[in-house]
Amino acid sequence: MKIGLLGHGVVGSGVTAITDSCAVKRVRRLEVSRILVKDEAELTDPRCTLNVEEILQDPEIEIVAECMGGLEPAHTFVSRALEAGKHVVTSNKKMFAHFCPELCALAAENGVTIRYEAAVGGGIPWMANLTRVKRLEPVQSFRGIFNGTTNYILTRMEETGMDFAECLNEAQSLGYAEKNPTDDIEGYDAKYKAALTAMKTFGAEPDLDAVITYGISTVSSKDLAWAKENGRSLKLIAEGKDDGDSISLWVMPVFLSKNDIFANVRENFNAAESDSKTLGKAVYIGQGAGSLPTAHAVVQDLLDIYVNQDAVPEAMKKRTVYNGNISARFYIRTGKPELFDAVTEQKLAEDTLLTKEMPLSEADRMIKESGDAALFAAMVAGE
Amino acid sequence: MKIGLLGHGVVGSGVTAITDSCAVKRVRRLEVSRILVKDEAELTDPRCTLNVEEILQDPEIEIVAECMGGLEPAHTFVSRALEAGKHVVTSNKKMFAHFCPELCALAAENGVTIRYEAAVGGGIPWMANLTRVKRLEPVQSFRGIFNGTTNYILTRMEETGMDFAECLNEAQSLGYAEKNPTDDIEGYDAKYKAALTAMKTFGAEPDLDAVITYGISTVSSKDLAWAKENGRSLKLIAEGKDDGDSISLWVMPVFLSKNDIFANVRENFNAAESDSKTLGKAVYIGQGAGSLPTAHAVVQDLLDIYVNQDAVPEAMKKRTVYNGNISARFYIRTGKPELFDAVTEQKLAEDTLLTKEMPLSEADRMIKESGDAALFAAMVAGE
Repeated sequence: MKIGLLGHGVVGSGVTAITDSCAVKRVRRLEVSRILVKDEAELTDPRCTLNVEEILQDPEIEIVAECMGGLEPAHTFVSRALEAGKHVVTSNKKMFAHFCPELCALAAENGVTIRYEAAVGGGIPWMANLTRVKRLEPVQSFRGIFNGTTNYILTRMEETGMDFAECLNEAQSLGYAEKNPTDDIEGYDAKYKAALTAMKTFGAEPDLDAVITYGISTVSSKDLAWAKENGRSLKLIAEGKDDGDSISLWVMPVFLSKNDIFANVRENFNAAESDSKTLGKAVYIGQGAGSLPTAHAVVQDLLDIYVNQDAVPEAMKKRTVYNGNISARFYIRTGKPELFDAVTEQKLAEDTLLTKEMPLSEADRMIKESGDAALFAAMVAGE
Repeated sequence: MKIGLLGHGVVGSGVTAITDSCAVKRVRRLEVSRILVKDEAELTDPRCTLNVEEILQDPEIEIVAECMGGLEPAHTFVSRALEAGKHVVTSNKKMFAHFCPELCALAAENGVTIRYEAAVGGGIPWMANLTRVKRLEPVQSFRGIFNGTTNYILTRMEETGMDFAECLNEAQSLGYAEKNPTDDIEGYDAKYKAALTAMKTFGAEPDLDAVITYGISTVSSKDLAWAKENGRSLKLIAEGKDDGDSISLWVMPVFLSKNDIFANVRENFNAAESDSKTLGKAVYIGQGAGSLPTAHAVVQDLLDIYVNQDAVPEAMKKRTVYNGNISARFYIRTGKPELFDAVTEQKLAEDTLLTKEMPLSEADRMIKESGDAALFAAMVAGE
């Protein structure tokens, strides 16, 4: 089975490393025959090309693996591959979170499949296991630590007492954070993964703008100190729940109890948990990024297509995202604490307070209305 | 597809609860048509019978699900089902750990399959995920918290400071421990699961008697106090590793660093971790027992057979178990500490010592030779 690979960066080069290895090539006969690269400096392999038509118009290529990242031209190339009757595997969460329903419909129209295991949780076999649970029963809710960059930063802040900027610098120098870290630290990357999980678990097509999303760019060592004093661990959590008429879907830092299994997911690891009627809570923890773990997930998708385990994608329906059913206490550090007087349960410092239990949607509205760009907000889970 | 169910206790009744539900019956056409029960008091359903021949000799029954537990007559019934050309699904770790190679060969001879997801880790999709990793690369090592009873007892001892006997009583009254808890507290149950995992991951047929096995029956609140003082958590760990010529395979209490993800696996939960070249460490955590989670795993196996995802079992080869490559420091509490003088690195109390780093096989020999039945031994992991 011939594969056209789009992109030969961190993930793409991992894909060729694995598929070129003897086991996969001989036993499974999966072969990357063409690789689209972005400039002449990347023409390091005889299979490399700068012309995408050599992949999209090659009738021998049955699967296109998209590991380019970014919205365009990835979206256009994937659409054209599907229209040409090629299966698609993608590791591109941003593109796929924006276009998943459209691309799944296009795949179904053309009798092919599109798989995206690598797009959420890197190496964690999250989509495969959700698919497995779902053939027996609906998944009622999920939560995840879906972003390794922020998890690394929060772990290091907790361990060292260093402030956010220093830990971000460290993450960048180790290759755990990109030069422009906005998507990671503002929670957007986690939001894309939460949306893709909701599409899978709930068959829901959520409005991305309705997903309440907070990152960690305003976190301070003071907040980690509070976590330590109170026996808690601060993690960037994404959560989704099927409420029947609507779904709840949000991303926010959460002060977890130390007994929570997620509290011990450290460094750049990711975690994902599903909850369903008979299986109960099932947790998966592993490498959320990195060349080989992510490429492993891409190749697993290729193998699933090779052994024909996959049907055309399921239809999705638009679902309202409503976070008014999510109720919690919130930790808020702001230059304008007086704006929260009506909902304050406890003053923690001059600029920091704990709200009484209130709906997430209401907390979100008050935070947005405060206009304080330096405000740090986190949910406090459990007692 | 008609299923004959052997045993209608905790797991078996969960299986009928799930397969009788509309989704599985209508969509998947899996139907339990006969249930073997052990006495007249259990004849609560028109499908129940006391005569196993009504299952083994029914040509319409294509799969036998064995949820009886114990070595006999489970082993004989499963053998006869395979000989009759029926697929088998079993949740019986003790029986299957003893007869796995024989039964897999018998299944292969008869062109049928035998699956055992529920036998290790209850609801955790451990076998399914190991199978998935293995189609891409070998699994080099694994470890697990495979016994929920002992994990519950150790968690409660840690939380409350109560002694072993009290926590065992509590576990028994909650249904987490059996009246005769020997298999659990002596580590035998964990050994069966470790052996089954080694068979799956390494294609190895290990000598069960060569698996170094320590339980927690001699643990005291003093040992948990030491764990607390040293920022550690005590867990009953099973571990296996492919060393090429031999495999290492052992079960022992381990004082884990608090930062270890396994340190936070609490109550009656189970955990399993595999390590392989490109995926790296992959961790699965979930319900290790209980009626519905374990039955969920049985029904997942039934579905795998229904959708024909399964080949006949792989052949296994005898592999030597050799634990001389496993090196660690050991915590030993004994009435005869002088027997360990030559390997003592630090005296912790009159009756308690920490050895210098030494091979597990050597520590095992010294402990056995001490003849001290009340001795408590645990490995100390990491720094």
